[in-house]
Order: sequence, then C-alpha cells, then structure tokens
Amino acid sequence: MPEPSSKAEYVVGVDLGGTKILSGVFTNSLKFVGRSKMSTKAERGPEAVIERIAHCVQDAVDECDLDLKQVKGVGIGAPGSVDSETGKVMFAGNLGWKDVSLKKELEKQLQLPVFLGNDCNVCTLGVHEVELEGKPKNMVGVFLGTGIGGGLILDGKVFTGFNRTAGEVGHMVLEVNGPKCTCGNRGCWEALSSRSALFRQVLEAVKNGQKTVLTDMLGNDLRDLRSGDLRKAIKQGDKFVEHIVEEAAKYTGVAVANLINVLSPEVVIIGGGLVDALENEMMSIIVETAREHAFPGSDKGVKILASKLGDDAGITGGAVLARRETK
Amino acid sequence: MPEPSSKAEYVVGVDLGGTKILSGVFTNSLKFVGRSKMSTKAERGPEAVIERIAHCVQDAVDECDLDLKQVKGVGIGAPGSVDSETGKVMFAGNLGWKDVSLKKELEKQLQLPVFLGNDCNVCTLGVHEVELEGKPKNMVGVFLGTGIGGGLILDGKVFTGFNRTAGEVGHMVLEVNGPKCTCGNRGCWEALSSRSALFRQVLEAVKNGQKTVLTDMLGNDLRDLRSGDLRKAIKQGDKFVEHIVEEAAKYTGVAVANLINVLSPEVVIIGGGLVDALENEMMSIIVETAREHAFPGSDKGVKILASKLGDDAGITGGAVLARRETK
Repeated sequence: MPEPSSKAEYVVGVDLGGTKILSGVFTNSLKFVGRSKMSTKAERGPEAVIERIAHCVQDAVDECDLDLKQVKGVGIGAPGSVDSETGKVMFAGNLGWKDVSLKKELEKQLQLPVFLGNDCNVCTLGVHEVELEGKPKNMVGVFLGTGIGGGLILDGKVFTGFNRTAGEVGHMVLEVNGPKCTCGNRGCWEALSSRSALFRQVLEAVKNGQKTVLTDMLGNDLRDLRSGDLRKAIKQGDKFVEHIVEEAAKYTGVAVANLINVLSPEVVIIGGGLVDALENEMMSIIVETAREHAFPGSDKGVKILASKLGDDAGITGGAVLARRETK
Repeated sequence: MPEPSSKAEYVVGVDLGGTKILSGVFTNSLKFVGRSKMSTKAERGPEAVIERIAHCVQDAVDECDLDLKQVKGVGIGAPGSVDSETGKVMFAGNLGWKDVSLKKELEKQLQLPVFLGNDCNVCTLGVHEVELEGKPKNMVGVFLGTGIGGGLILDGKVFTGFNRTAGEVGHMVLEVNGPKCTCGNRGCWEALSSRSALFRQVLEAVKNGQKTVLTDMLGNDLRDLRSGDLRKAIKQGDKFVEHIVEEAAKYTGVAVANLINVLSPEVVIIGGGLVDALENEMMSIIVETAREHAFPGSDKGVKILASKLGDDAGITGGAVLARRETK
C-alpha cells in the first residue's frame, strides 16, 4: 500500500454510484472542505471508470487549493457486494462490474492508500460518526433512492456478517404477492418504496389515463421526472401523487418496524435522495406506521430520524473510513 | 448471589413456558443426565409458578440421584421481554407476568445461582453450543410453536440490542394486508406460520364445511388437535391439510430469506414443536423458498437446518447459560 506523506492532513471520501461519482475533501477532524462531481460512464468499462474516479478525487483536491500529497487516504463506497479486505467489488449490477480490484487500481493511479466499503455501509458509517457523533451502539441506516439499501452498526461497529451482505434490506419481502422486483421476487421493499417503484406506478397510471399535474409540468412522456417533482405535485394538491407517496411511506414504516423487531437498534436513520426530496411528505407517515407495527416494547426510546446529510452521506462516510484506517 | 458448593459438578437448564415447565440436569461438559416436567399453572400467579419451577428443578435433580449441593447453577429461559442483568421478567403475556424478579426469588428458594434469558435466545444458545459445537460466528435461530420467536448469535455472542428485544422475528410483517395477528397488526409471520395460525385456518375451514380426515380422527370440534395430527392427516392423503402446511412453510421460507438478507448469518436453525412434528413436510419447502427469495449471493454457503434438539433446546440452552456464568 502506498504510504501517505507525513504532512498529510486531509482525507477524501468517494461515493461511486451507477450514474455519478462524488468526491469530498475533509480535514482530519472531518470538517468538509470541498467537493467534485462527475458522471460515472459505466458503459465505458471498469478501467475507464476507475480513471474517472481518480480524476474526480484530483479535481476535488484541486478545488480546495490542495495537493494530493496533503491527503492521507481515500475511502470509497461502491454499490453491490464488496469485499473490504481484498478491496474488490465482487458484483455490482448497476455498474456491470464483476471481480474488479478497485482498491488496487485506484491506489496505483492516485499513489495513496484507498479503503473500500459497500455504499450503504459507508453512508451508515458517515451518519453514525458525523451526524450522531458516534453515540448509538446499535443503529440501522436505510437509504431510499433508485433502489433501497441499508447498513448496520452493531456493538459500535459496521456489521457485515458471513457473506459480507448484511443490511441488504431493500429485498426484504413485505408483501408476498406484491409487485415484481428487479431481483425476480415479488413484494420486496424496493419494489414498493424506491424512487423506481414510485416512478413505475406514476408512469403506468398515466398510461392508463390517470390525470396528474406531473404531465402539465413535464409533458406526457414524463421523461425528466425527478423526486422533487413529486413534492411539487403534492404541493399543488395532486391527490394521485400524494396517495402513491403515502403508500410508499407506509411500506417503509412497516419495513422499519421489521428492522426494529429483528435488531432492536437505538436509532434508525432514513436517508437517500427520495427521502431528501420528500422528507415532509414521508417522514411522519414512516414514523407513525413503524410505531404501530413494532412489537410492543421493542420501539421504546428508539429514535427514527431523517438524515440531514442527504447526498453527502456517502462522501462523509468515505472520509470516516479513510480517517479510521489511516489513524 | 448464593455460592455453589465446590464439589458441584452439574448444571440445570429450565425452560419456562406458558403451559409447561421443563428442567434438565447436565454434567459440566453438557452431557444430558435427566429431566423433569410439570404444568406451569400460570393462573395461580408468579409466586406459585416460581415455587413450581423450584420444585421441578428439585425433581429433576432427584430423578438423577443427585443432590442440589452438586449443582453449580441454574439457567432459565423465560418467555416475553426479559432483563438478564437484573434477572427480571419485564413482561410475559402468556404468563400474565409484569416485572417479576424471577432470578432473585428462585435463588432464594433453591439457594443456588440462577441466570435468566429470553426463551428463544436461550434455545439459540443451546443449539449453537451443543448442536453446532459453537462454530458459526453468526447464526439465527427461529422457533415455530404456539407463537414464533427467534434468537441471534452475532460475532459469537447472543445479541439482544438496545431494548434487549432483538430476535423478535415472529412479528416481522410478510403480508401487509394478511391475517390479523394477536399483536394487533396484520400479516406477521406468526399469524401466517405458527401452530396457532395453522389451527385457526383448519378450524375456520371446517366451520365453513371443509372436509378433512382430522374430524374423522378427532371429532368435529377438533378440541385435542396437535401438530402431529396434521402430519398424520397429510400421510393419509389429506390435500386440504397439506396445502395449509405448505403455505405456512412457504411464508417461513420468505421470512428466513428476509433474515438472511438483513443479517447475513452463516447458519439459520429452525426449531420448535411445529417443525419438530412436521420436519419432513415443511423443511424442503422452507429451504427452497428461502433460496428463491434470498438476494443473489447473500445465501451462498449459508446452511438452513432443522434443529435436532426439539423440545430439549430450552433446557440445553439453560444449561449452557448456567455453565458459562459459573465458570
């Protein structure tokens, strides 16, 4: 592993997604300094994407008027199943990756130590350390975006289990005969409450003649539909959109109750782009439904909170990972 | 805490249930020596039940031609929410108990150290230590009987979480609009796959005119229906009973997949009276459905096994608890 310079006082967190790469520079005390963003271009293959990640890290460092020599290490959250020890992305569907030596290749390009984790575990780590100041011993983080993922902090540490896949909460079945999921099953939480699930419901209904202000806003094909548009539609009194968002929030509440029953966490943090855009519309329903469905006594004193880190959870967690590993 | 005699070479495990108390004597190397069984008589109140537990322990020891002085300690698994540290049963619906100092009172009666745990956690501990020889670092135990409960071994230790309620898997919702559960919600695993759920379905169908060999065997009121009768009915070719048992096994498979997705255990052990009676009829369906529903990769190498300990899981786990705490 490359050795960082003794003068290095910064860490970089990277959030590698299917559509974009985010890099953030943080001081060693985890104060945010600056960032950079780039599209992933996954279709160009792993080698090109890793070059883009290196580029994005360099841009972020340059943006902060710093030099790579001042960086101690880089922590990166990648989607899919990830082996932190070997530094490999075993499988990532939305990148089309299989057995990619991300750590090794990125270290070669940056000449810096790189540490790898699953994206949702890294986000959970970021929220735990920075937003909650490391206090809860047992915590669950769930992130609602294009898909739904999660991470577990148990006994103060990220818990990944036997196959390193613990926290794969999006494919928890909540409705055995529910809608089809991309994983092949039916009624997974992701098929009921993710952004993709909401958009699918909107598009299907519109195709079947449903009236909504969304088509006034975006045209009939709804090609540029975003989470924020759902919020705007609800604000304009669109009952159809409101109902769809409410149902997704209810299912999320049931999923949170299931997680409380199984794991008895002290805190459940709900993050991700969808909740970021629709916090006011979703959170109270999520909390109420979760409390209704948690087994009596199991949710006593348990906090169910929206993350304030939003899109920055990933880069923050990456920075936490890099700091912890280079201490 | 009372001090055991220095000559003490045995431990006793107790399984406290809503209808019966089981006590088992084990050597310090966890070899089973003998047992005793008694009805709980919960309606007589906590004081009387604790006297009966003491009585049952004494009977088991006497049955083995031993004396209480030869016992190092007693480990007991109690239903409901239990605080192992204070030794109190906080709440147990099927006993009608609230804040009962079980450890303290039983120690007074037996003049022996007593250690308390939740019944399903204690069963899981028993299976882990004796049946699996303590090998899997991460394991989930689920027990299907009148209700459904579970226990978690994470990083080699029983995990109870913030409210000490972790493993309350029976109230995981699998079908949001499913049948009503005793907890007030709908579609909990317990409302779909427990013995009570199966019996309820049988009784309702019979009331609505369903033909089944069960009524030939037991009369129209089916008052003495037991899990074993379902097995006998299936053996006699009763398709109605077979279908009900298959559905319960399928839901159990989905629940097991959910637990694999969330926790990534190395082993899932399925025990309890219902599975003990219907292992051949249920296990292959449970395993197949779990593998179908687990997220690709998350069940790789994961063992899904029926416990061979049957009704002895509780007393075995109690003995493990007593041995560990008196070492």
